Amino acid sequence: MTDLWFTEMHTADARFSIKITEHLHSEKSIYQQIDLYDSETFGRFLAIDNFMMLTEKDEFIYHDMITHPAMAVNPDIKRVLIIGGGDGGSAREILRYPTIEHVDLVEIDERVVRLCQEYLPQTACKLDADSRLHLYFEDGLLFVKNMASQSYDLILVDSTDPIGPGEGLFTYDFYQNCKRILSDNGILINQHESPYYKNDAYEMRRSHAKLKCTFPIAKVYQFHMPTYPSGHWLFGFASKKYDPIEDLKADRWKSFGLYTRYYNTELHQGAFMLPTYVKEGLEHV
Amino acid sequence: MTDLWFTEMHTADARFSIKITEHLHSEKSIYQQIDLYDSETFGRFLAIDNFMMLTEKDEFIYHDMITHPAMAVNPDIKRVLIIGGGDGGSAREILRYPTIEHVDLVEIDERVVRLCQEYLPQTACKLDADSRLHLYFEDGLLFVKNMASQSYDLILVDSTDPIGPGEGLFTYDFYQNCKRILSDNGILINQHESPYYKNDAYEMRRSHAKLKCTFPIAKVYQFHMPTYPSGHWLFGFASKKYDPIEDLKADRWKSFGLYTRYYNTELHQGAFMLPTYVKEGLEHV
Repeated sequence: MTDLWFTEMHTADARFSIKITEHLHSEKSIYQQIDLYDSETFGRFLAIDNFMMLTEKDEFIYHDMITHPAMAVNPDIKRVLIIGGGDGGSAREILRYPTIEHVDLVEIDERVVRLCQEYLPQTACKLDADSRLHLYFEDGLLFVKNMASQSYDLILVDSTDPIGPGEGLFTYDFYQNCKRILSDNGILINQHESPYYKNDAYEMRRSHAKLKCTFPIAKVYQFHMPTYPSGHWLFGFASKKYDPIEDLKADRWKSFGLYTRYYNTELHQGAFMLPTYVKEGLEHV
Repeated sequence: MTDLWFTEMHTADARFSIKITEHLHSEKSIYQQIDLYDSETFGRFLAIDNFMMLTEKDEFIYHDMITHPAMAVNPDIKRVLIIGGGDGGSAREILRYPTIEHVDLVEIDERVVRLCQEYLPQTACKLDADSRLHLYFEDGLLFVKNMASQSYDLILVDSTDPIGPGEGLFTYDFYQNCKRILSDNGILINQHESPYYKNDAYEMRRSHAKLKCTFPIAKVYQFHMPTYPSGHWLFGFASKKYDPIEDLKADRWKSFGLYTRYYNTELHQGAFMLPTYVKEGLEHV
Protein backbone atom coordinates (compact mmCIF):
# COMPACT_ATOMS: atom_id res chain seq x y z
CA MET A 1 0.00 0.00 0.00
CA THR A 2 1.39 3.39 -0.94
CA ASP A 3 1.02 6.26 1.49
CA LEU A 4 2.26 9.35 -0.34
CA TRP A 5 1.95 12.84 1.11
CA PHE A 6 2.75 16.25 -0.31
CA THR A 7 4.18 18.40 2.49
CA GLU A 8 4.67 22.15 2.46
CA MET A 9 6.56 23.93 5.21
CA HIS A 10 4.46 26.91 6.32
CA THR A 11 7.21 27.93 8.72
CA ALA A 12 10.38 26.10 9.74
CA ASP A 13 8.33 24.33 12.44
CA ALA A 14 4.84 24.09 10.94
CA ARG A 15 3.88 21.97 7.98
CA PHE A 16 0.74 21.14 6.03
CA SER A 17 0.39 17.79 4.26
CA ILE A 18 -2.04 16.41 1.73
CA LYS A 19 -2.36 12.74 0.92
CA ILE A 20 -1.90 12.28 -2.79
CA THR A 21 -3.69 9.70 -4.87
CA GLU A 22 -1.42 10.23 -7.88
CA HIS A 23 1.75 12.15 -8.71
CA LEU A 24 0.64 13.21 -12.18
CA HIS A 25 3.80 14.95 -13.36
CA SER A 26 7.16 16.19 -12.16
CA GLU A 27 9.70 18.26 -14.04
CA LYS A 28 12.39 20.84 -13.57
CA SER A 29 11.91 23.66 -16.07
CA ILE A 30 14.58 26.30 -16.74
CA TYR A 31 13.04 28.33 -13.94
CA GLN A 32 11.63 26.03 -11.29
CA GLN A 33 10.47 22.64 -10.09
CA ILE A 34 6.90 21.96 -11.26
CA ASP A 35 4.75 19.19 -9.81
CA LEU A 36 1.15 18.18 -10.40
CA TYR A 37 -0.67 15.91 -7.99
CA ASP A 38 -4.12 14.47 -7.53
CA SER A 39 -5.86 14.13 -4.16
CA GLU A 40 -9.28 13.28 -2.84
CA THR A 41 -10.15 16.35 -0.77
CA PHE A 42 -8.46 19.02 -2.91
CA GLY A 43 -8.67 17.47 -6.36
CA ARG A 44 -5.70 18.11 -8.62
CA PHE A 45 -3.13 20.62 -7.50
CA LEU A 46 -0.05 22.45 -8.75
CA ALA A 47 3.10 22.93 -6.68
CA ILE A 48 6.06 25.07 -7.73
CA ASP A 49 9.34 24.58 -5.89
CA ASN A 50 7.25 22.55 -3.41
CA PHE A 51 4.94 25.48 -2.60
CA MET A 52 1.24 24.95 -3.19
CA MET A 53 0.09 27.22 -5.99
CA LEU A 54 -3.50 26.14 -6.44
CA THR A 55 -5.89 23.27 -5.92
CA GLU A 56 -8.99 22.55 -7.96
CA LYS A 57 -11.19 22.82 -4.87
CA ASP A 58 -10.25 26.24 -3.53
CA GLU A 59 -8.82 28.10 -6.55
CA PHE A 60 -12.22 29.74 -7.04
CA ILE A 61 -11.56 31.87 -3.95
CA TYR A 62 -8.22 33.24 -5.14
CA HIS A 63 -9.42 33.85 -8.70
CA ASP A 64 -12.68 35.48 -7.60
CA MET A 65 -10.78 37.83 -5.36
CA ILE A 66 -8.01 38.79 -7.80
CA THR A 67 -10.44 39.75 -10.59
CA HIS A 68 -13.94 40.80 -9.48
CA PRO A 69 -13.19 43.58 -6.95
CA ALA A 70 -11.45 45.68 -9.61
CA MET A 71 -14.26 45.05 -12.11
CA ALA A 72 -16.84 46.18 -9.55
CA VAL A 73 -14.94 49.42 -8.98
CA ASN A 74 -14.47 50.11 -12.70
CA PRO A 75 -16.90 48.05 -14.80
CA ASP A 76 -15.59 49.83 -17.91
CA ILE A 77 -12.24 48.04 -17.82
CA LYS A 78 -11.46 46.87 -21.35
CA ARG A 79 -7.75 46.09 -21.55
CA VAL A 80 -6.04 43.83 -19.01
CA LEU A 81 -2.47 42.71 -18.36
CA ILE A 82 -1.86 39.60 -16.27
CA ILE A 83 1.68 39.12 -14.99
CA GLY A 84 2.22 35.48 -14.06
CA GLY A 85 -1.02 33.55 -13.76
CA GLY A 86 0.20 30.72 -15.99
CA ASP A 87 -2.42 28.38 -14.56
CA GLY A 88 -5.05 30.42 -16.42
CA GLY A 89 -7.46 30.98 -13.52
CA SER A 90 -7.24 34.78 -13.53
CA ALA A 91 -7.65 34.87 -17.31
CA ARG A 92 -10.67 32.54 -17.11
CA GLU A 93 -12.41 34.82 -14.59
CA ILE A 94 -11.67 38.13 -16.31
CA LEU A 95 -12.77 36.73 -19.69
CA ARG A 96 -16.22 36.01 -18.25
CA TYR A 97 -16.96 39.71 -18.79
CA PRO A 98 -18.14 40.21 -22.37
CA THR A 99 -16.99 43.85 -22.13
CA ILE A 100 -13.32 42.86 -21.82
CA GLU A 101 -11.68 43.46 -25.19
CA HIS A 102 -8.04 42.48 -24.79
CA VAL A 103 -6.01 40.45 -22.27
CA ASP A 104 -2.24 40.03 -22.37
CA LEU A 105 -0.91 37.26 -20.15
CA VAL A 106 2.85 37.34 -19.53
CA GLU A 107 4.15 34.16 -17.92
CA ILE A 108 7.90 33.67 -17.76
CA ASP A 109 7.71 29.87 -17.76
CA GLU A 110 5.92 28.36 -20.76
CA ARG A 111 6.03 24.94 -19.10
CA VAL A 112 3.61 26.12 -16.39
CA VAL A 113 1.07 27.01 -19.07
CA ARG A 114 1.56 23.82 -21.04
CA LEU A 115 1.32 21.58 -17.99
CA CYS A 116 -1.77 23.36 -16.69
CA GLN A 117 -3.37 22.98 -20.11
CA GLU A 118 -2.69 19.26 -19.88
CA TYR A 119 -3.51 18.61 -16.21
CA LEU A 120 -5.62 21.54 -14.97
CA PRO A 121 -8.19 22.32 -17.66
CA GLN A 122 -10.42 23.74 -14.91
CA THR A 123 -8.21 26.84 -14.74
CA ALA A 124 -6.41 26.65 -18.12
CA CYS A 125 -9.59 26.22 -20.20
CA LYS A 126 -9.48 29.70 -21.78
CA LEU A 127 -5.76 29.89 -22.52
CA ASP A 128 -6.21 28.68 -26.10
CA ALA A 129 -9.93 29.19 -26.48
CA ASP A 130 -10.56 32.94 -26.45
CA SER A 131 -9.34 35.22 -29.22
CA ARG A 132 -9.18 38.16 -26.79
CA LEU A 133 -6.33 36.48 -24.90
CA HIS A 134 -2.69 36.84 -25.96
CA LEU A 135 0.03 34.74 -24.39
CA TYR A 136 3.63 35.92 -23.94
CA PHE A 137 6.37 33.75 -22.48
CA GLU A 138 8.61 36.54 -21.28
CA ASP A 139 9.93 38.20 -18.18
CA GLY A 140 7.13 40.40 -16.82
CA LEU A 141 9.66 42.99 -15.68
CA LEU A 142 10.94 43.52 -19.24
CA PHE A 143 7.46 43.33 -20.71
CA VAL A 144 6.18 46.26 -18.65
CA LYS A 145 9.41 48.21 -19.28
CA ASN A 146 8.98 47.99 -23.05
CA MET A 147 5.23 48.58 -23.14
CA ALA A 148 3.74 51.88 -24.35
CA SER A 149 2.22 54.23 -21.78
CA GLN A 150 -1.50 54.01 -20.97
CA SER A 151 -1.89 50.56 -22.55
CA TYR A 152 -4.08 48.91 -19.90
CA ASP A 153 -6.99 49.62 -17.57
CA LEU A 154 -6.10 46.81 -15.19
CA ILE A 155 -2.94 44.93 -14.24
CA LEU A 156 -3.16 41.71 -12.21
CA VAL A 157 0.13 40.76 -10.58
CA ASP A 158 -0.64 37.07 -10.15
CA SER A 159 2.83 36.03 -9.15
CA THR A 160 4.45 33.36 -7.05
CA ASP A 161 6.11 34.32 -3.78
CA PRO A 162 8.94 36.87 -4.03
CA ILE A 163 11.66 34.24 -4.19
CA GLY A 164 12.88 32.59 -7.39
CA PRO A 165 11.51 33.90 -10.70
CA GLY A 166 8.88 36.06 -8.96
CA GLU A 167 11.49 38.12 -7.15
CA GLY A 168 11.99 40.95 -9.67
CA LEU A 169 8.27 41.65 -9.66
CA PHE A 170 8.34 43.07 -6.19
CA THR A 171 10.52 46.11 -7.04
CA TYR A 172 9.89 49.87 -7.29
CA ASP A 173 10.98 49.79 -10.90
CA PHE A 174 8.36 47.21 -11.78
CA TYR A 175 5.51 49.04 -10.03
CA GLN A 176 6.53 52.36 -11.58
CA ASN A 177 6.36 50.87 -15.04
CA CYS A 178 3.00 49.36 -14.17
CA LYS A 179 1.74 52.80 -13.24
CA ARG A 180 3.05 54.30 -16.47
CA ILE A 181 1.39 51.71 -18.71
CA LEU A 182 -1.96 52.04 -16.90
CA SER A 183 -4.65 54.42 -18.16
CA ASP A 184 -5.81 57.32 -16.00
CA ASN A 185 -8.55 55.07 -14.59
CA GLY A 186 -6.03 52.31 -14.03
CA ILE A 187 -6.10 49.74 -11.23
CA LEU A 188 -3.39 47.29 -10.19
CA ILE A 189 -4.12 44.22 -8.07
CA ASN A 190 -1.09 42.71 -6.40
CA GLN A 191 -0.55 39.29 -4.81
CA HIS A 192 0.25 40.66 -1.39
CA GLU A 193 1.24 37.63 0.72
CA SER A 194 -0.14 37.14 4.24
CA PRO A 195 -0.14 39.09 7.49
CA TYR A 196 0.25 36.18 9.87
CA TYR A 197 3.52 34.27 9.71
CA LYS A 198 6.59 36.43 10.16
CA ASN A 199 8.22 35.91 6.74
CA ASP A 200 4.95 36.38 4.87
CA ALA A 201 4.18 39.53 6.85
CA TYR A 202 7.61 40.90 5.97
CA GLU A 203 6.84 40.47 2.26
CA MET A 204 3.39 42.00 2.77
CA ARG A 205 4.99 45.13 4.22
CA ARG A 206 7.65 45.30 1.50
CA SER A 207 5.07 45.09 -1.30
CA HIS A 208 2.79 47.55 0.38
CA ALA A 209 5.52 50.11 0.98
CA LYS A 210 6.34 50.13 -2.72
CA LEU A 211 2.74 50.41 -3.88
CA LYS A 212 2.08 53.21 -1.41
CA CYS A 213 5.02 55.21 -2.80
CA THR A 214 3.94 54.61 -6.38
CA PHE A 215 0.15 55.03 -6.46
CA PRO A 216 -2.04 57.76 -4.97
CA ILE A 217 -4.42 55.07 -3.66
CA ALA A 218 -3.03 51.86 -2.16
CA LYS A 219 -5.26 49.65 0.00
CA VAL A 220 -5.28 46.02 1.05
CA TYR A 221 -8.05 43.44 1.15
CA GLN A 222 -8.20 39.98 2.67
CA PHE A 223 -9.72 36.60 1.97
CA HIS A 224 -9.81 33.05 3.35
CA MET A 225 -7.53 30.74 1.36
CA PRO A 226 -7.64 27.27 2.97
CA THR A 227 -4.51 25.81 1.36
CA TYR A 228 -2.22 28.82 1.84
CA PRO A 229 -0.17 29.29 5.03
CA SER A 230 -2.44 30.41 7.92
CA GLY A 231 -5.43 30.58 5.52
CA HIS A 232 -5.26 34.38 5.71
CA TRP A 233 -4.24 35.94 2.39
CA LEU A 234 -4.17 39.45 0.94
CA PHE A 235 -4.33 41.35 -2.32
CA GLY A 236 -3.14 44.92 -2.72
CA PHE A 237 -5.49 47.33 -4.54
CA ALA A 238 -3.57 50.26 -6.06
CA SER A 239 -5.06 52.82 -8.38
CA LYS A 240 -4.66 56.21 -9.96
CA LYS A 241 -8.04 57.58 -8.92
CA TYR A 242 -10.57 54.98 -7.81
CA ASP A 243 -11.12 54.18 -4.16
CA PRO A 244 -12.15 50.53 -3.76
CA ILE A 245 -15.02 51.34 -1.37
CA GLU A 246 -16.21 54.84 -2.31
CA ASP A 247 -16.18 54.00 -6.00
CA LEU A 248 -17.71 50.55 -5.71
CA LYS A 249 -20.47 50.22 -8.32
CA ALA A 250 -22.41 47.34 -6.84
CA ASP A 251 -25.47 47.67 -9.06
CA ARG A 252 -23.46 47.88 -12.25
CA TRP A 253 -21.43 44.85 -11.22
CA LYS A 254 -24.59 42.88 -10.44
CA SER A 255 -25.95 43.76 -13.87
CA PHE A 256 -23.19 41.61 -15.42
CA GLY A 257 -25.18 38.68 -14.00
CA LEU A 258 -22.12 36.61 -13.11
CA TYR A 259 -22.43 33.92 -10.46
CA THR A 260 -19.41 33.90 -8.14
CA ARG A 261 -19.02 31.31 -5.37
CA TYR A 262 -16.83 33.47 -3.12
CA TYR A 263 -17.11 37.09 -4.23
CA ASN A 264 -20.14 39.31 -3.78
CA THR A 265 -20.39 43.10 -3.50
CA GLU A 266 -21.10 42.98 0.26
CA LEU A 267 -18.05 40.81 0.84
CA HIS A 268 -16.13 43.29 -1.33
CA GLN A 269 -16.65 45.94 1.34
CA GLY A 270 -16.01 43.56 4.23
CA ALA A 271 -12.74 42.37 2.71
CA PHE A 272 -11.21 45.85 3.15
CA MET A 273 -12.07 45.93 6.88
CA LEU A 274 -8.90 44.53 8.35
CA PRO A 275 -7.93 43.24 11.80
CA THR A 276 -6.12 45.76 13.98
CA TYR A 277 -2.79 43.95 13.87
CA VAL A 278 -2.89 43.84 10.05
CA LYS A 279 -3.67 47.55 9.81
CA GLU A 280 -0.80 48.28 12.16
CA GLY A 281 1.58 46.12 10.14
CA LEU A 282 0.63 48.04 6.99
CA GLU A 283 0.87 51.47 8.59
CA HIS A 284 4.41 50.94 9.84
CA VAL A 285 5.98 50.54 6.42
CA MET B 1 18.33 14.68 18.50
CA THR B 2 14.60 14.61 19.15
CA ASP B 3 12.25 15.61 16.36
CA LEU B 4 8.77 15.67 17.89
CA TRP B 5 5.72 16.90 15.99
CA PHE B 6 2.13 17.41 17.07
CA THR B 7 -0.12 16.42 14.16
CA GLU B 8 -3.80 17.15 13.78
CA MET B 9 -5.87 15.62 11.00
CA HIS B 10 -7.87 18.43 9.36
CA THR B 11 -9.53 15.88 7.12
CA ALA B 12 -8.79 12.18 6.59
CA ASP B 13 -6.22 13.22 3.97
CA ALA B 14 -4.96 16.60 5.18
CA ARG B 15 -2.90 17.18 8.27
CA PHE B 16 -1.26 20.09 10.04
CA SER B 17 1.86 19.56 12.16
CA ILE B 18 3.74 21.71 14.62
CA LYS B 19 7.23 20.93 15.83
CA ILE B 20 7.20 20.80 19.60
CA THR B 21 10.03 21.90 21.82
CA GLU B 22 8.51 20.31 24.93
CA HIS B 23 5.59 18.04 25.79
CA LEU B 24 4.67 19.85 28.99
CA HIS B 25 1.89 17.60 30.22
CA SER B 26 -0.29 14.69 29.18
CA GLU B 27 -3.24 13.18 31.01
CA LYS B 28 -6.51 11.42 30.46
CA SER B 29 -9.23 13.08 32.55
CA ILE B 30 -12.65 11.49 33.11
CA TYR B 31 -13.80 13.25 29.97
CA GLN B 32 -10.95 13.53 27.51
CA GLN B 33 -7.28 13.39 26.63
CA ILE B 34 -5.54 16.66 27.57
CA ASP B 35 -2.10 17.63 26.27
CA LEU B 36 -0.02 20.74 26.68
CA TYR B 37 2.93 21.45 24.41
CA ASP B 38 5.46 24.16 23.83
CA SER B 39 6.66 25.28 20.40
CA GLU B 40 8.69 28.05 18.90
CA THR B 41 6.28 29.61 16.40
CA PHE B 42 3.03 29.14 18.34
CA GLY B 43 4.25 29.27 21.93
CA ARG B 44 2.48 26.95 24.34
CA PHE B 45 -0.64 25.22 23.14
CA LEU B 46 -3.48 23.05 24.43
CA ALA B 47 -4.80 19.99 22.60
CA ILE B 48 -7.89 18.02 23.64
CA ASP B 49 -8.34 14.57 22.14
CA ASN B 50 -5.55 15.59 19.77
CA PHE B 51 -7.46 18.60 18.41
CA MET B 52 -5.78 21.98 18.74
CA MET B 53 -7.78 24.13 21.15
CA LEU B 54 -5.60 27.20 21.41
CA THR B 55 -2.08 28.47 21.03
CA GLU B 56 -0.54 31.40 22.87
CA LYS B 57 0.22 33.16 19.59
CA ASP B 58 -3.21 33.21 17.94
CA GLU B 59 -5.69 32.85 20.81
CA PHE B 60 -6.13 36.62 20.80
CA ILE B 61 -8.08 36.31 17.54
CA TYR B 62 -10.59 33.76 18.85
CA HIS B 63 -11.07 35.51 22.19
CA ASP B 64 -11.43 38.96 20.64
CA MET B 65 -14.08 37.67 18.30
CA ILE B 66 -16.10 35.67 20.83
CA THR B 67 -16.44 38.59 23.26
CA HIS B 68 -16.16 42.07 21.74
CA PRO B 69 -18.80 41.97 18.96
CA ALA B 70 -21.59 41.32 21.50
CA MET B 71 -20.28 44.08 23.80
CA ALA B 72 -20.25 46.55 20.90
CA VAL B 73 -23.89 45.74 20.11
CA ASN B 74 -25.02 45.96 23.74
CA PRO B 75 -22.46 47.85 25.86
CA ASP B 76 -24.84 47.55 28.82
CA ILE B 77 -24.24 43.82 29.25
CA LYS B 78 -23.73 43.15 32.95
CA ARG B 79 -24.23 39.43 33.56
CA VAL B 80 -22.46 36.80 31.47
CA LEU B 81 -22.54 33.00 31.28
CA ILE B 82 -19.63 31.18 29.64
CA ILE B 83 -20.26 27.54 28.73
CA GLY B 84 -16.94 25.74 28.29
CA GLY B 85 -14.02 28.12 27.95
CA GLY B 86 -11.96 26.35 30.62
CA ASP B 87 -8.77 27.88 29.27
CA GLY B 88 -9.98 31.23 30.62
CA GLY B 89 -9.44 33.32 27.50
CA SER B 90 -13.08 34.35 27.04
CA ALA B 91 -13.36 35.22 30.74
CA ARG B 92 -10.17 37.27 30.55
CA GLU B 93 -11.50 39.35 27.65
CA ILE B 94 -15.00 39.91 29.02
CA LEU B 95 -13.62 40.91 32.42
CA ARG B 96 -11.67 43.75 30.80
CA TYR B 97 -14.95 45.69 30.83
CA PRO B 98 -15.33 47.40 34.20
CA THR B 99 -19.10 47.44 33.60
CA ILE B 100 -19.37 43.65 33.73
CA GLU B 101 -20.77 42.73 37.15
CA HIS B 102 -21.02 38.95 37.18
CA VAL B 103 -19.58 36.07 35.10
CA ASP B 104 -20.44 32.40 35.59
CA LEU B 105 -18.08 30.00 33.84
CA VAL B 106 -19.35 26.43 33.53
CA GLU B 107 -16.68 23.97 32.44
CA ILE B 108 -17.45 20.27 32.67
CA ASP B 109 -13.81 19.24 33.11
CA GLU B 110 -12.06 20.79 36.11
CA ARG B 111 -8.74 19.39 34.88
CA VAL B 112 -8.81 21.72 31.85
CA VAL B 113 -9.04 24.71 34.17
CA ARG B 114 -6.38 23.47 36.56
CA LEU B 115 -3.92 22.60 33.79
CA CYS B 116 -4.45 25.91 32.03
CA GLN B 117 -3.86 27.70 35.33
CA GLU B 118 -0.57 25.84 35.58
CA TYR B 119 0.63 25.96 31.98
CA LEU B 120 -1.31 28.73 30.21
CA PRO B 121 -1.42 31.73 32.56
CA GLN B 122 -1.77 33.94 29.48
CA THR B 123 -5.41 32.84 29.12
CA ALA B 124 -6.13 31.51 32.63
CA CYS B 125 -4.86 34.59 34.48
CA LYS B 126 -8.28 35.80 35.61
CA LEU B 127 -9.77 32.46 36.66
CA ASP B 128 -8.78 32.92 40.31
CA ALA B 129 -8.06 36.65 40.30
CA ASP B 130 -11.36 38.43 39.75
CA SER B 131 -14.15 38.36 42.32
CA ARG B 132 -16.76 38.86 39.59
CA LEU B 133 -15.96 35.42 38.15
CA HIS B 134 -17.62 32.24 39.48
CA LEU B 135 -16.40 28.81 38.40
CA TYR B 136 -18.69 25.76 38.14
CA PHE B 137 -17.44 22.32 37.20
CA GLU B 138 -20.68 20.97 35.86
CA ASP B 139 -22.42 19.88 32.71
CA GLY B 140 -23.44 23.07 30.88
CA LEU B 141 -26.61 21.38 29.63
CA LEU B 142 -27.85 20.78 33.19
CA PHE B 143 -26.64 24.17 34.37
CA VAL B 144 -28.79 26.07 31.87
CA LYS B 145 -31.75 23.73 32.54
CA ASN B 146 -31.73 24.52 36.26
CA MET B 147 -31.04 28.25 35.95
CA ALA B 148 -33.74 30.83 36.62
CA SER B 149 -35.21 32.71 33.66
CA GLN B 150 -33.70 36.05 32.57
CA SER B 151 -30.47 35.49 34.51
CA TYR B 152 -27.95 36.69 31.91
CA ASP B 153 -27.46 39.37 29.26
CA LEU B 154 -24.90 37.36 27.32
CA ILE B 155 -24.10 33.67 26.89
CA LEU B 156 -20.84 32.59 25.25
CA VAL B 157 -20.90 28.98 24.05
CA ASP B 158 -17.14 28.48 24.00
CA SER B 159 -17.23 24.75 23.43
CA THR B 160 -15.08 22.12 21.81
CA ASP B 161 -16.26 20.50 18.61
CA PRO B 162 -19.61 18.69 18.80
CA ILE B 163 -18.08 15.31 19.52
CA GLY B 164 -17.22 14.01 22.98
CA PRO B 165 -18.28 16.12 25.96
CA GLY B 166 -19.27 19.06 23.75
CA GLU B 167 -21.91 17.06 21.92
CA GLY B 168 -24.94 17.82 24.13
CA LEU B 169 -24.38 21.52 23.73
CA PHE B 170 -25.44 21.49 20.11
CA THR B 171 -29.09 20.53 20.80
CA TYR B 172 -32.42 22.37 20.52
CA ASP B 173 -33.03 21.75 24.20
CA PHE B 174 -29.81 23.50 25.16
CA TYR B 175 -30.41 26.54 22.95
CA GLN B 176 -34.02 26.84 24.18
CA ASN B 177 -32.86 26.94 27.76
CA CYS B 178 -30.25 29.51 26.80
CA LYS B 179 -32.97 31.68 25.34
CA ARG B 180 -35.10 31.32 28.48
CA ILE B 181 -32.31 32.33 30.84
CA LEU B 182 -31.35 35.35 28.72
CA SER B 183 -32.80 38.80 29.47
CA ASP B 184 -34.95 40.55 26.86
CA ASN B 185 -31.79 42.24 25.53
CA GLY B 186 -30.00 38.90 25.51
CA ILE B 187 -27.32 37.81 23.05
CA LEU B 188 -25.82 34.36 22.56
CA ILE B 189 -22.51 33.79 20.77
CA ASN B 190 -21.96 30.26 19.56
CA GLN B 191 -18.78 28.45 18.46
CA HIS B 192 -20.05 27.72 14.97
CA GLU B 193 -17.35 25.58 13.34
CA SER B 194 -16.13 26.29 9.80
CA PRO B 195 -17.68 26.53 6.34
CA TYR B 196 -14.87 24.93 4.38
CA TYR B 197 -14.18 21.27 5.05
CA LYS B 198 -17.21 19.03 4.61
CA ASN B 199 -17.54 17.74 8.18
CA ASP B 200 -17.06 21.19 9.71
CA ALA B 201 -19.59 22.69 7.29
CA TYR B 202 -22.09 20.02 8.31
CA GLU B 203 -21.75 21.05 11.96
CA MET B 204 -21.99 24.71 10.96
CA ARG B 205 -25.33 24.06 9.28
CA ARG B 206 -26.64 21.94 12.19
CA SER B 207 -25.80 24.62 14.76
CA HIS B 208 -27.22 27.36 12.61
CA ALA B 209 -30.48 25.55 11.93
CA LYS B 210 -31.09 25.22 15.66
CA LEU B 211 -30.24 28.84 16.47
CA LYS B 212 -32.45 30.05 13.63
CA CYS B 213 -35.42 28.10 15.01
CA THR B 214 -34.80 29.36 18.54
CA PHE B 215 -33.95 33.05 18.24
CA PRO B 216 -35.65 35.82 16.25
CA ILE B 217 -32.22 37.02 15.08
CA ALA B 218 -29.53 34.51 14.10
CA LYS B 219 -26.55 35.62 12.02
CA VAL B 220 -23.04 34.35 11.43
CA TYR B 221 -19.67 36.11 11.40
CA GLN B 222 -16.25 34.97 10.31
CA PHE B 223 -12.64 35.39 11.28
CA HIS B 224 -9.15 34.17 10.34
CA MET B 225 -7.90 31.52 12.78
CA PRO B 226 -4.47 30.32 11.60
CA THR B 227 -4.28 27.09 13.64
CA TYR B 228 -7.84 25.86 13.00
CA PRO B 229 -8.67 23.70 9.96
CA SER B 230 -8.73 25.84 6.78
CA GLY B 231 -8.10 28.98 8.87
CA HIS B 232 -11.71 30.04 8.24
CA TRP B 233 -13.81 29.97 11.40
CA LEU B 234 -17.23 31.21 12.44
CA PHE B 235 -19.26 32.37 15.41
CA GLY B 236 -23.04 32.44 15.49
CA PHE B 237 -24.67 35.65 16.78
CA ALA B 238 -28.19 34.96 18.11
CA SER B 239 -30.31 37.48 19.95
CA LYS B 240 -33.77 38.38 21.13
CA LYS B 241 -33.83 41.87 19.65
CA TYR B 242 -30.46 43.28 18.65
CA ASP B 243 -29.22 43.09 15.09
CA PRO B 244 -25.41 42.83 15.04
CA ILE B 245 -25.00 45.50 12.33
CA GLU B 246 -27.97 47.84 12.73
CA ASP B 247 -27.52 48.01 16.49
CA LEU B 248 -23.74 48.31 16.49
CA LYS B 249 -22.74 51.09 18.88
CA ALA B 250 -19.26 51.81 17.60
CA ASP B 251 -18.74 55.06 19.49
CA ARG B 252 -19.90 53.63 22.80
CA TRP B 253 -17.63 50.63 22.32
CA LYS B 254 -14.67 52.85 21.50
CA SER B 255 -15.33 54.84 24.69
CA PHE B 256 -14.36 51.75 26.71
CA GLY B 257 -10.84 52.49 25.50
CA LEU B 258 -9.82 48.84 25.13
CA TYR B 259 -6.96 47.96 22.81
CA THR B 260 -7.75 44.84 20.78
CA ARG B 261 -5.21 43.31 18.40
CA TYR B 262 -7.77 41.68 16.09
CA TYR B 263 -11.17 43.23 16.73
CA ASN B 264 -12.22 46.74 15.74
CA THR B 265 -15.65 48.16 14.98
CA GLU B 266 -14.99 48.33 11.23
CA LEU B 267 -13.89 44.70 11.17
CA HIS B 268 -17.07 43.96 13.17
CA GLN B 269 -19.14 44.97 10.17
CA GLY B 270 -16.88 43.27 7.66
CA ALA B 271 -16.99 39.99 9.58
CA PHE B 272 -20.72 39.61 8.86
CA MET B 273 -20.18 40.00 5.10
CA LEU B 274 -19.80 36.39 4.08
CA PRO B 275 -18.63 34.65 0.91
CA THR B 276 -21.41 33.50 -1.40
CA TYR B 277 -20.84 29.79 -0.75
CA VAL B 278 -21.02 30.32 3.01
CA LYS B 279 -24.27 32.29 2.73
CA GLU B 280 -25.72 29.53 0.56
CA GLY B 281 -24.64 26.85 3.02
CA LEU B 282 -26.38 28.73 5.84
CA GLU B 283 -29.56 29.42 3.86
CA HIS B 284 -30.11 25.78 2.97
CA VAL B 285 -30.54 24.56 6.53
